[in-house]
Amino acid sequence: MKYIFVSHGDLAKSILGSAQMIVGEQTNVKAFGLYPNDDIGSLKDQVKAAIEEFGGGNDIICFTDLFSGSPFNAVVALMGDYPIRHITGMNLPMVLEAFMSRMNEENSAETICEKLLNEAPATVIDVNHYLAVNLED
Amino acid sequence: MKYIFVSHGDLAKSILGSAQMIVGEQTNVKAFGLYPNDDIGSLKDQVKAAIEEFGGGNDIICFTDLFSGSPFNAVVALMGDYPIRHITGMNLPMVLEAFMSRMNEENSAETICEKLLNEAPATVIDVNHYLAVNLED
Repeated sequence: MKYIFVSHGDLAKSILGSAQMIVGEQTNVKAFGLYPNDDIGSLKDQVKAAIEEFGGGNDIICFTDLFSGSPFNAVVALMGDYPIRHITGMNLPMVLEAFMSRMNEENSAETICEKLLNEAPATVIDVNHYLAVNLED
Repeated sequence: MKYIFVSHGDLAKSILGSAQMIVGEQTNVKAFGLYPNDDIGSLKDQVKAAIEEFGGGNDIICFTDLFSGSPFNAVVALMGDYPIRHITGMNLPMVLEAFMSRMNEENSAETICEKLLNEAPATVIDVNHYLAVNLED
């Protein structure tokens, strides 16, 4: 399984770097950022080259930062040509789970995406509420 | 309303930087990262100083990257001393909404947190599914 992270600015590279602080160095992963004055076509070309390098197959999941932003649109523009999966709205718990899930090589991109999407709502937590409930005892 | 972002590595600083690419430069905001070999006590001290600088009141929301990580724990350790709000599992759509919501100065930290928590699940989107449904026409 191969992962590609795409975002405005350094977010994609940083979420990968922060994840690697926790789960260790990862292979088969790339991160790209769109910077002020960058051409969205150039970003699309970089992501396309990464998809090609990864074999262009159905074992590639792209993660983007924000629905309908330019990084999102760059990936969407490639979805007609490649059977990639694409989840937007990534956060660190999702990225960590993605790295852990691919350790089981039997997991398909579809299986991993389903798991990530099912678990996503529970990764956002109101900590004040959590502590109030769990410190009641 | 004041915001403090805390994460492993550069994620907090980058999510703020990427958000500012979209909504413009922001004031009353700080971002801190925990790096390899850093002392968690030092991170806690930095966040504490930021809370003090922001007045230590109930108009501060802390956003962390991951439930139960060291950055999360550094903020939790301060929640007994300051009436801050704390949401973990931040993503870029949440951060953007936080900046937009505080433009209405009548919004309390509680109101903004409720809005962010309610909207969080919908910020994570299965793009393949979204396109399949919306391109059916």
